[in-house]
Amino acid sequence: MIVVLKNNTPKAQVDGFMQKLRERGFEVHVSKGESATVLGLIGDTSKVEPEEMLAYDFVESAQRVKAPYKQVSRSFHPEDTVVSVGGNSVGDGKSVCVMAGPCSVETEEQVVEVAKAVKASGARFLRGGAFKPRTSPYSFQGLGAEGLELLKVARKETGLPIVTELMAINQIELFSDVDIIQIGARNMQNFDLLKEVGKLRNPILLKRGLASTVKEFLMSAEYIMASGNPNVILCERGIRTFDNYTRNCLDLSIVPYLKKETHLPVIIDPSHACGIRWMVPTLAKAAVAVGADGLIIEVHNNPEKALCDGEQSLTPAQFDETMKILAKYAAVEGRTL
Amino acid sequence: MIVVLKNNTPKAQVDGFMQKLRERGFEVHVSKGESATVLGLIGDTSKVEPEEMLAYDFVESAQRVKAPYKQVSRSFHPEDTVVSVGGNSVGDGKSVCVMAGPCSVETEEQVVEVAKAVKASGARFLRGGAFKPRTSPYSFQGLGAEGLELLKVARKETGLPIVTELMAINQIELFSDVDIIQIGARNMQNFDLLKEVGKLRNPILLKRGLASTVKEFLMSAEYIMASGNPNVILCERGIRTFDNYTRNCLDLSIVPYLKKETHLPVIIDPSHACGIRWMVPTLAKAAVAVGADGLIIEVHNNPEKALCDGEQSLTPAQFDETMKILAKYAAVEGRTL
Amino acid sequence: MIVVLKNNTPKAQVDGFMQKLRERGFEVHVSKGESATVLGLIGDTSKVEPEEMLAYDFVESAQRVKAPYKQVSRSFHPEDTVVSVGGNSVGDGKSVCVMAGPCSVETEEQVVEVAKAVKASGARFLRGGAFKPRTSPYSFQGLGAEGLELLKVARKETGLPIVTELMAINQIELFSDVDIIQIGARNMQNFDLLKEVGKLRNPILLKRGLASTVKEFLMSAEYIMASGNPNVILCERGIRTFDNYTRNCLDLSIVPYLKKETHLPVIIDPSHACGIRWMVPTLAKAAVAVGADGLIIEVHNNPEKALCDGEQSLTPAQFDETMKILAKYAAVEGRTL
Amino acid sequence: MIVVLKNNTPKAQVDGFMQKLRERGFEVHVSKGESATVLGLIGDTSKVEPEEMLAYDFVESAQRVKAPYKQVSRSFHPEDTVVSVGGNSVGDGKSVCVMAGPCSVETEEQVVEVAKAVKASGARFLRGGAFKPRTSPYSFQGLGAEGLELLKVARKETGLPIVTELMAINQIELFSDVDIIQIGARNMQNFDLLKEVGKLRNPILLKRGLASTVKEFLMSAEYIMASGNPNVILCERGIRTFDNYTRNCLDLSIVPYLKKETHLPVIIDPSHACGIRWMVPTLAKAAVAVGADGLIIEVHNNPEKALCDGEQSLTPAQFDETMKILAKYAAVEGRTL
Repeated sequence: MIVVLKNNTPKAQVDGFMQKLRERGFEVHVSKGESATVLGLIGDTSKVEPEEMLAYDFVESAQRVKAPYKQVSRSFHPEDTVVSVGGNSVGDGKSVCVMAGPCSVETEEQVVEVAKAVKASGARFLRGGAFKPRTSPYSFQGLGAEGLELLKVARKETGLPIVTELMAINQIELFSDVDIIQIGARNMQNFDLLKEVGKLRNPILLKRGLASTVKEFLMSAEYIMASGNPNVILCERGIRTFDNYTRNCLDLSIVPYLKKETHLPVIIDPSHACGIRWMVPTLAKAAVAVGADGLIIEVHNNPEKALCDGEQSLTPAQFDETMKILAKYAAVEGRTL
Repeated sequence: MIVVLKNNTPKAQVDGFMQKLRERGFEVHVSKGESATVLGLIGDTSKVEPEEMLAYDFVESAQRVKAPYKQVSRSFHPEDTVVSVGGNSVGDGKSVCVMAGPCSVETEEQVVEVAKAVKASGARFLRGGAFKPRTSPYSFQGLGAEGLELLKVARKETGLPIVTELMAINQIELFSDVDIIQIGARNMQNFDLLKEVGKLRNPILLKRGLASTVKEFLMSAEYIMASGNPNVILCERGIRTFDNYTRNCLDLSIVPYLKKETHLPVIIDPSHACGIRWMVPTLAKAAVAVGADGLIIEVHNNPEKALCDGEQSLTPAQFDETMKILAKYAAVEGRTL
Repeated sequence: MIVVLKNNTPKAQVDGFMQKLRERGFEVHVSKGESATVLGLIGDTSKVEPEEMLAYDFVESAQRVKAPYKQVSRSFHPEDTVVSVGGNSVGDGKSVCVMAGPCSVETEEQVVEVAKAVKASGARFLRGGAFKPRTSPYSFQGLGAEGLELLKVARKETGLPIVTELMAINQIELFSDVDIIQIGARNMQNFDLLKEVGKLRNPILLKRGLASTVKEFLMSAEYIMASGNPNVILCERGIRTFDNYTRNCLDLSIVPYLKKETHLPVIIDPSHACGIRWMVPTLAKAAVAVGADGLIIEVHNNPEKALCDGEQSLTPAQFDETMKILAKYAAVEGRTL
Repeated sequence: MIVVLKNNTPKAQVDGFMQKLRERGFEVHVSKGESATVLGLIGDTSKVEPEEMLAYDFVESAQRVKAPYKQVSRSFHPEDTVVSVGGNSVGDGKSVCVMAGPCSVETEEQVVEVAKAVKASGARFLRGGAFKPRTSPYSFQGLGAEGLELLKVARKETGLPIVTELMAINQIELFSDVDIIQIGARNMQNFDLLKEVGKLRNPILLKRGLASTVKEFLMSAEYIMASGNPNVILCERGIRTFDNYTRNCLDLSIVPYLKKETHLPVIIDPSHACGIRWMVPTLAKAAVAVGADGLIIEVHNNPEKALCDGEQSLTPAQFDETMKILAKYAAVEGRTL
């Protein structure tokens, strides 16, 4: 960590401050320049926030040199983490793993029909929401526990492992049999929930918050890993900007950045990012081009009747067509779907 | 709700769509223009999201005319809501209620000393964190249940009611005796938590999320009220923008806007907004000027030794000075602290 | 345009307002709902801003139904605009046109060497900055007129048409012989400059402003077209968000959106977007995947000695390798470079 | 400047890099830590951008310690700059200087009537737009040179000095007699225009760009001062965020920050910030509370008939009432209007 002191800080204060830092276990290097004195702190700075230094009025600024995360870092764990479920791998570098299904689970017929269709087109996981985070208390909140059961029926019918969102600590027991547990964007910094899923061994699909920096995103993954669960999949799903011609802005640059900075698999959710059906296939192609390990795509057998997010759901036929073109893109990189 | 159809939508589709809308209970008005057909939906649109309409490919756009919230709306409840705790009122239009105390509760001595000091300067509530939301799993996470007990000791010593943050459903029982329960910015859309505190009668101080729109903020308050708890205080604490010369950007315009749009009390947290001690008093003055019903300010007896957020904490002496000038600002509007 | 009136607006005011609107040439449709009266304005609303309506205190909100742009709109001009310069076409749907070269023109040797290299790798235009917009008055401001001459030397040597940035009205004469004139992101709403280049016939490469909405971007293109110049190329170069792990956030969703909404060619500048050399090839691939008509990429023969933006410049060898992989991506869509 | 090198950089590369830095005139201090080597550059870093360092692949990151601006900095010029025009001072610390008038100059009657009214209420400058930056080429673009003449008529009638916007280099001659020349938000980084007004001696009112950081804002002021004009007034007028319940978000924290960081006067434009008439007086009060040196407020004698921005203009009566309350706020700080 680099700490810049104000120019006219009395020597006694500088010395006292350095003494305190040494007592906290840091080695301290000093560079005295014409306009500022710069201290370099060497040691384990992961427990110190740069902002803490600003509690001292003579500190001008403080910045980390080393990332504040450890276990998620590629420098800590150089090999790619591969999350494997029922023979399907996410992050193996050879495949682009597609998860597909309806935004909300509605009926057994619906979820089984969609599951069969997406499997036929090459999807490797069935996604579907049972507990739904909705901006309005008056909107459909999902079927809850019953929805989970319907997903399991569809899993039994098709063999597809299931991915579904967990919203609260007190629902965790219901999720023991879920193949991949999703933590949604709005809960990315629900730290108690992160700690709890960190105690499980089910793979966790962690979505980036709407306005979360990459550093915050990785710190949330670190919460899960620090609690003991190494099976984390990162998912970009669009961020909030000043414009709204799409619902969110899909930040595709994060894929190459994360693949370099961390060893965890990275997938893209084009459906929630744009929120418009016709744009989903185009963004999915770009996700493959930037090196995503997978995609999570909404598919509904009757989008106009969907209880949630129908506007962004592909029909099974559109999904099938999309998968064919995605396979060509994957092939350019020597990958398969 | 206004629904704009694409220009060349076949009449049969328009008719079928209007029929469906009528079946859902809406009265539908049609305006046919040269470039688009516009439908006006009249009825209870609170259960419909404009985005749902986009599931139909012939829908160009859809917008609400009426706000999606009900119980928080001033049009639904014209009188100001006044939240009263132990003789102190928030939102009465006559006082500016100041809540003050340390970011984190650390020791009994610390919290009692700060409580006495802020009381002497005119604070009406003691704030302090027992459960702390921290970006890093390696940072101090608060004293937890023990911290709550220390707050209660300070309450007993000073008579000041206490305000402290609740982070998870499974801690709710511990909070039964807390005077005002705070829901933090990162949990503003933790909908399960909102529903649970909606079942309580303790007043809820709801902080605006870092990148939450006013509409989303009010919908989260609506979650609490819709679950039965009418005692909600709204708190602006700075939003995230493209710049970072202050930690967050204090959005003071929200105060007059919320006072017009809703009947709930609105307070300002200048400490978390700017994250820099010397700027806190200035922003506090502005908060009074825009009509805030209260302020929540961090005060620490030894900021340089604070375990959290020392950089933004006032010393008791600085707080005392701030209160004197705030009283003058309040007086301009005929208010007292 | 839809104008929503407040609920309790007296009938006389509504009538008077409607009368004024009719006098301005609009046909006015009325829908009276329980919570608001909605007026639909039919006619040429391009000269009216929705905000103007808010000057009347009884107006709740106003929204456009029809886009405020005309000439840039695909509904006005359904066929793709193809910009052709010296046998090279941008926007023909069959090729992905690559423009490459150094950020700043520095010496004849440099620009000629880079021009030859990028031509050999398949670039179709030479880009290079002579007049440079720099945040600091103390940074290198470009060679100016001399830089333009060096670009022309490189053009003569290689046959590559040149693309370079114009920053001010009083430099226009110097640019008469420039093949494509670039208007930079910071000048996207320099309306006087837009009007002036609108009087030329040289193709204009208009870059999106750092925080400009798509609507504003298209309105700036409309300024150029409304002044008489139909040869406009739109360029996305990254937007400003709350994060800064890359210099800007490349907003790739804009490509399919613009291709649908407008008939103008759309290209991507991955170099300025990310500001990091190693990420440029990855983003370039994604640009091809989303359907960009071209790319503008920085290449420098000695990035470490570049006077500007060396951190984002590819070496000629890296550019060559990038072009080979881009050709494969283009082939998936049946295009060539 | 602090330059962090990657952990495993070979010693020969580090040595070569340090040699180059010394050749550019810097003294270089080295701190070798466990995870990185940190170089401290001492000397005049104003001509070097931290990003330049990233052209070297072994550089991890680079940050400034010292601000990149000089002449605008309070450390360079400790006393407040006071801009005086015709007996009215901006930035003297004793007064809050109010500039008022219509968004657009429309007719002689209009501008003279408004000028007389705002003078009677205590305004010290007349503001009014002759050349108008409009998003759409089809919107009213201002009366241009004729508008300037009308402003001068109003100045003659009332004695109020005038403030009006300059949009392009080729209009400068027309502005020689303008008391304060405004550079609008969209031209904040029109560097050629900044250089030209830097050659004048008329005071320049520089508005912050919609999405400009404080650093960029100050660098633009530095452009003007570096060209020779020391009379710069900084104006915050709202920034662009993710929300749009007000047109822009008035960033009031910038006032105390700028007053500390620079010696230049700082004023607030509440009218453009919120874009809603009824909120203007409230924000104006807050501007006084945070220590602004002045305000620029839109006033129109008939807002509903304004050709531009009528929705945010106060009537003369509303302005008069606002001035009375602002005087009370100024008095709290020992200031007058």
